[in-house]
Parts: sequence; structure tokens; C-alpha cells
Amino acid sequence: MSDAPTTPIEARARLELLGLGLAAQDVLFAHFDDAERRGKRGHGYARIAWLEERSFDLDASPGKTDSRPGLDRWDGHGALGYLTLQAICDDLIASPPATAKLAVATRCFPTGALGYWVRLVSEQAGLIALLTATSPRRLPHPDGSEALTGTNPLAIAIPSSGGPPIVVDVSMGAVTHGDVLAGLASPEELVPFGGKNAHKAFALAVGLELLVEALAGPEHGAVMLVARPEFDPVPGFRERAEGLRLPGDS
Amino acid sequence: MSDAPTTPIEARARLELLGLGLAAQDVLFAHFDDAERRGKRGHGYARIAWLEERSFDLDASPGKTDSRPGLDRWDGHGALGYLTLQAICDDLIASPPATAKLAVATRCFPTGALGYWVRLVSEQAGLIALLTATSPRRLPHPDGSEALTGTNPLAIAIPSSGGPPIVVDVSMGAVTHGDVLAGLASPEELVPFGGKNAHKAFALAVGLELLVEALAGPEHGAVMLVARPEFDPVPGFRERAEGLRLPGDS
Repeated sequence: MSDAPTTPIEARARLELLGLGLAAQDVLFAHFDDAERRGKRGHGYARIAWLEERSFDLDASPGKTDSRPGLDRWDGHGALGYLTLQAICDDLIASPPATAKLAVATRCFPTGALGYWVRLVSEQAGLIALLTATSPRRLPHPDGSEALTGTNPLAIAIPSSGGPPIVVDVSMGAVTHGDVLAGLASPEELVPFGGKNAHKAFALAVGLELLVEALAGPEHGAVMLVARPEFDPVPGFRERAEGLRLPGDS
Repeated sequence: MSDAPTTPIEARARLELLGLGLAAQDVLFAHFDDAERRGKRGHGYARIAWLEERSFDLDASPGKTDSRPGLDRWDGHGALGYLTLQAICDDLIASPPATAKLAVATRCFPTGALGYWVRLVSEQAGLIALLTATSPRRLPHPDGSEALTGTNPLAIAIPSSGGPPIVVDVSMGAVTHGDVLAGLASPEELVPFGGKNAHKAFALAVGLELLVEALAGPEHGAVMLVARPEFDPVPGFRERAEGLRLPGDS
């Protein structure tokens, strides 16, 4: 795999060479650049080098396949998952639900840093958002087994009247697959986090894996819940936390 | 606090003495008895002794205050949270949504073992269910602070064509408050689980706390998502796990 781009200009140039359309380049650049700025380099420019080694359908475009009260269905149609999640977010921002809605994305991979997407709808539509997604199986059972689930992150964003939202983005792995690829962690360390309580993170990974599969099917997918807030708890919470770093803070 | 009842007959008798109506006694007994059978004794008969020392509104009854596509709102109206969650489950079982629905319960405490409620709607209505609830603040920031969040469990049930559902029920605390009360753990051990990754469990606790507060308000509440499954991933998952104990198995 080539080295990752080291500057935004190089990232832009190499994204262009992938052959994607301009709008798709913009979506990917915004995602990777945000990840770099937040120190999530495994979801940043390194993914451009990763994409350079993969073949994918350059012209594929995600679509909404069903929309009913309470639930929208989307299909990635072979497009990169980033594009599917961006399309879902754009749609929710343009037409936020009056109450709550579940958006189910079939064939949606890779999905990047899930916190990015929930932050987007939270900041731009004032919605509460919760998102999870499946990815290749990498986590074994805490008692030992072959890999049974993805690292299956859970991201939650809560908007605030008084500043940025709180954005939680927690993977169930003790280390990331990116760390293993980069030689920063051994494959044996890619287990459910929690040490003696690893059964807890494993249980969450299993629940989220099956939630997505039961709604989106056996290929990697994503499930996003959005809801309109009725209360504004973040300012009071930040006050109680008295300046401590909270999830999603830079 | 008195000793907990040790037999179902004693549990029944002492529940009756609390002065609740018969239907409410049945709801509480079923919940406590199930917790005992599953070894979750902190949510079992011990709670009868706990209730004996509390005053609560014996005649209060939860009610649905709003119902719109995608979202129902409930108010505990001062009733025990068990009764509010039972009413929500009964309602969802009687009228399962065609797609997905969020049920938001304001003033809903105590809520017991959340796995019980998601198992109920999963087994009886064939729905996917995800439930979280807030409780008194007990978890500090991993860097040290006063208690900022409840232990805020997340429960997820996925129905299966081939047997019992998978039922995940994970609290974000390294130990339970019940363990501390029973002298089995020290108050200092009641921190987010995860050891060196405790920031992950803390982040989840924060996200779930604010999710509930943003929807249900500042008093303890609960939020349940239910959705109709489109796929049946549990049998295949159990097969891959080759007899290993999975979340919710007895």
C-alpha cells in the first residue's frame, strides 16, 4: 500500500485520480480531512491509499428504496459507504422527521468515522442521532473463538443550544484494525475492549451486529436513528463536568 | 433494610403487603422472579426489600400522552418504572408498528433489568428492540470527578426463527450499585468499565444519558426503539459461535 497523503492538497489530488465524480470527491475529502483534524488518522488520508488498492464501482450511486412513517430504506447499490451515509444525512437535513425516523442502509461499506455523520445531522438539523454499522468480522468471543463480529461502533450525537453537540463514537475493539495494519498493535490485541469486563463490549458488538443484520441484511450495512429533541440537556451536563473533556470535544 | 425474600411465596406475600393492586403485583413479581432465575439478584427479590423502605404512589398509573407516526410518548405519572415499561411493552405487543417506533417514557424509574423488557417484545411480538434508561448518577469521569452519569444500561434483543432471541443487557459500570450495597464491591469500584479503555464505557454512558434526557426530560426516563426485522440473522450467528455462550443465554 502506498503511503498516505500528507497534505490536503495531496489528498485532493490523489482522490481525483481515483476517478470518482467531483461531488463524491468532495464527500470523501470532507470526511477524511475531518478525521485527520480530530486525530482519527485511521479514518483520514490513510484511507485514500487504501482505496487506491481496491476496485469499486466509480459510477454507483446510493438510492432511497422505500420511505414510510418511521423508517426509510436505502441501498448503497455498490457505492462507497461514505456516499450512502452522506446521502442519508443530506436527506434527513433537508427533510427532518417531525418525530423520529430509522434510516436503514443495505450494502453500506466503508462507513468511516461514525461520529462524523451523527455530528453532521446534529449540527445541521438539530436532531439527536444514533448510528451503528457493521464491518468485517474481527472480534472473537472473550472465551476465545474465530472472529464473530465487526468492531461495530456506536455513535450518538446530542445537539446543544449552547455550543457544539456532544458526540460519542465508541468502537467495541480494544484497539483498531488500523492500529494493527500500521503495526501499532498486534492482531491478538484486537479483542473486545474491557479486560475482565470484555464480555460487556462483546455483548454490545453482538447486539449491534445483529441489529444491523436483522434490518439491513447479511452484507455490511448501517442503521441510523434520528429524533427531534424535546429538551436541551447538554449545557447543564457540561456545567456539571466543569471543564473536563467530554466525548467529541476537540 | 430487611432481608430479601428467599422464596417465590415469600416474595408474593411481601409484594402484596406493599399495597399495590393485583395487576401491579403480578408485573413486579414476574420481573423480580425472572431476574432471580437469571442470576441477576440485584434486580430480583432484593428489590422488594428495597421497595418496602420507599414511599411511592400506590395508585399511580402510567399513560400514553402522545402517539404519532414514529414516536409514542408515555408518562409514568409517579408509578413505579416497572409498570410504565410493562404498559409500553403491552401496547407494542398489542399494536406492533408496521416499520419502527420510538417509545419515550418520562418519569420512569426504577426500570429493573432492561433485558427483560426487550426480551418480552422480541419474544411476544417478534420485534427487534433496543432500550436504555437513566438512573441516579453514579459514574465519574475516567479522569476523576463527581458522579456524572447513571450506569445507563443498553439492552438489545433480536428475535430468531430458530429459538430464543439474543438478548444483550450491558451496564456501563465496572460493578453494579447492588454489589456496592451488598458489600461485594467498594464504592470506588463503581466506575465506567473497561480499565484503560474506561473512556469508552464512560462515553457510552454519557451518550445514553443525554439521549434519554433530550427526549424524556431531566427526571429519570427510558427510551425504547422497536423495529420489524427484515432478516433472520440469529440462527446463522449461533451456528458460527459453535455452542459458545451468547448474550442472554441462560
